[in-house]
Amino acid sequence: MTQIEFARKGKITPEMEYIAHDEGVSPEYIRDGIAQGEIVILTNSKKPPKKLIAVGKGLRTKVNANIGTSEEHAVLEEEIEKAKVALEAGADTIMDLSTGGELAKIRRTIREVFPGPMGTVPIYEAAINAARNKGGIIFMDENEIFDTIEAHAKDGVNFVTVHCGVTLETFTRLKNEGRLMNIVSRGGAMHLVWMLANKKDNPLHTYFDRLLEIAHEYDITLSLGDGFRPGSIKDATDRAQIQELILLGELKERANKAGVQVMIEGPGHIPIEEIELNVRLEKKHCKNAPFYVLGPVVTDIAPGYDHVVAAIGGALAASYGADFLCYVTPSEHLALPTPEDVREGVITTRIAAHIGDLAKGVKGAFDWDYKMSLARLNLDWARQKELAIDKETFVKYREHRKPKLKDVCTMCGKYCSIKLLKEALKDKEQIIENK
Amino acid sequence: MTQIEFARKGKITPEMEYIAHDEGVSPEYIRDGIAQGEIVILTNSKKPPKKLIAVGKGLRTKVNANIGTSEEHAVLEEEIEKAKVALEAGADTIMDLSTGGELAKIRRTIREVFPGPMGTVPIYEAAINAARNKGGIIFMDENEIFDTIEAHAKDGVNFVTVHCGVTLETFTRLKNEGRLMNIVSRGGAMHLVWMLANKKDNPLHTYFDRLLEIAHEYDITLSLGDGFRPGSIKDATDRAQIQELILLGELKERANKAGVQVMIEGPGHIPIEEIELNVRLEKKHCKNAPFYVLGPVVTDIAPGYDHVVAAIGGALAASYGADFLCYVTPSEHLALPTPEDVREGVITTRIAAHIGDLAKGVKGAFDWDYKMSLARLNLDWARQKELAIDKETFVKYREHRKPKLKDVCTMCGKYCSIKLLKEALKDKEQIIENK
Repeated sequence: MTQIEFARKGKITPEMEYIAHDEGVSPEYIRDGIAQGEIVILTNSKKPPKKLIAVGKGLRTKVNANIGTSEEHAVLEEEIEKAKVALEAGADTIMDLSTGGELAKIRRTIREVFPGPMGTVPIYEAAINAARNKGGIIFMDENEIFDTIEAHAKDGVNFVTVHCGVTLETFTRLKNEGRLMNIVSRGGAMHLVWMLANKKDNPLHTYFDRLLEIAHEYDITLSLGDGFRPGSIKDATDRAQIQELILLGELKERANKAGVQVMIEGPGHIPIEEIELNVRLEKKHCKNAPFYVLGPVVTDIAPGYDHVVAAIGGALAASYGADFLCYVTPSEHLALPTPEDVREGVITTRIAAHIGDLAKGVKGAFDWDYKMSLARLNLDWARQKELAIDKETFVKYREHRKPKLKDVCTMCGKYCSIKLLKEALKDKEQIIENK
Repeated sequence: MTQIEFARKGKITPEMEYIAHDEGVSPEYIRDGIAQGEIVILTNSKKPPKKLIAVGKGLRTKVNANIGTSEEHAVLEEEIEKAKVALEAGADTIMDLSTGGELAKIRRTIREVFPGPMGTVPIYEAAINAARNKGGIIFMDENEIFDTIEAHAKDGVNFVTVHCGVTLETFTRLKNEGRLMNIVSRGGAMHLVWMLANKKDNPLHTYFDRLLEIAHEYDITLSLGDGFRPGSIKDATDRAQIQELILLGELKERANKAGVQVMIEGPGHIPIEEIELNVRLEKKHCKNAPFYVLGPVVTDIAPGYDHVVAAIGGALAASYGADFLCYVTPSEHLALPTPEDVREGVITTRIAAHIGDLAKGVKGAFDWDYKMSLARLNLDWARQKELAIDKETFVKYREHRKPKLKDVCTMCGKYCSIKLLKEALKDKEQIIENK
């Protein structure tokens, strides 16, 4: 039986117990959330991760770091380092999106390095093997897609992105819309290229039940990918995007019924004023399935700063109920990320997730800010460092310009407002009440 | 006559003409906005800046960079460099917040370097002179406050932060509230320390008409400061903060009637879900006066990343109608910013402002994103660089990992989704319609 099947029978599994403890909620809350398809535990019944993570309603917003090689740059050691850096920086999950080098070996190695849940996009391997062995993605055999997914599950992968909504129907919506950027999802493009050449619909949609069987056998979570996510502010929330979301909502219900856990992937390039709409629509059409967003990237004009742009979109999306943020690094739209980019991406995305958690009222979120404010009020710099989301960066800025007066910083020195007031109130033996 | 007086008489001044041209709106629109107190032109009738900037309804969201020395670190050359860096990075205005070294000399020097509008906080100089010459801020003479403001106006300053809402009444609200962080505004703290020691109310409130006379004489803009802005998520939108806003709203009307232009300064530390409320309340109580926000800083836990945190709050505030964003640098809460921090602060805040402009529908904003998307669709990297908000950073990431295939990047290489689709559609002579 899978987690969702146990939950539906009213049973609380050890996994649910663990998550409940980790999140500070009751096991019943987790069980009921899983039964409703509103919470997923990213696991693998045959090869669970060393550290379990759950995603969904009422839980801490999680952060994923994408790593992996490309044909342009495939160095296994660097990917191992990225996995370690992501872990240290506090990523909850990792996705191996490798498209260069020995794909299976890289995947298995990263699986060993990272203790938390790991995701993949199996279509990459199926398509690349077809390109390498048969001379083109279009020669990919339908069975290979499913076999690759099963191989990933066997390797201990915990969630797979499957672009089941990339169908000819959705593509018709895109053509009628006159979309600017077509498809910016790599996996979505691989499917579409194959579909157009073979004049067939997407096997992952046509034979969705076969996918469910595999996912059920390993109790891995299906992350229903948004192959038609907009790649430009111009294309945001267009009919192609929403058409795909509608299909994903249907598939989510079929999967849940079959005892399979599901997340829904979301955009993408979305202007700030459409983020609420996007989150609400996902929650509505997908019956509160966990929403896993990439960004959203709220402007196109800031390559090199897309980690900031995505933190803006991600914080807002999380505040409206998005459950899982895929990080974006400063290299987005420009290059394969380096380990330093990975670090920067994880930290900024964790900040965004926490800002969302403050709005959601997630347990412990406000308390963190409160403690930091108290440390500031007390001009207690050691405590501020301890509480900083990134101690290393805290020290870098504080140490770069050490103050002569130890209780303040070089910004205001002795005219520090906190210090001024503290002294004024002490002198006058005036104490602010209710403190 | 001042700009607002000309506007009320239906006259379009050369300054209004210039701004209208710069913003791509009609001179009548600017004139009417000024007449209503919804738009301000940051000028100085006796010593106008080399480049005029307007702030307010329907205009591009502007970005201010705070520079200046402290008692801990006062190096004039560094401040000159910061002013230049801010200009190059695209700051619209600058504020000299110096509190260390020769204050008048620093101010006059920066005034020469930066062509756009410049703001100051004259209470710093008045309080510091009292501390230096008389042994304490509490010995400051009331006249000195006004004399200093006039001296700044004479030097060609275009807007001054005046903490007129820091009154004993507001302080009572703060005490009754039991606020955690008291006052985190340096100018606000200076006023309050003086008020408590001298058992007198704030001269800038008591003798507001005297302030208006000076502002009128030079046609400088009063930036009504929020001395009681919250310095912690815990204190956001509390009664003290809103009490002050109410007073500022009243003063705004008095100032406008007296022919003086006004902006309202806003928080500060505000959780993401209270930003809309804060912007709407300012617009309501201050009759759509331009809203000049510091951040907002939407979480307290990320020192070293407060430029990102403020970009999140600033983008959202701008999207709801905030008109003017004061940048925050990575050094915020930790140290006096370096020139590199200034650059980072200006760029991230410009990104936030632009994201707000997309939501506001400001002229030209969407077009920039559209052009960038088109350059991406065409895999035209030279054009992408040209359109990037920060070309230097674009090049840094792109060049760090040069692709072997010139038309893609190292992230996806030959599996670039845009490239895949382009080839697939060409092969099949299938063209997406309406492009």
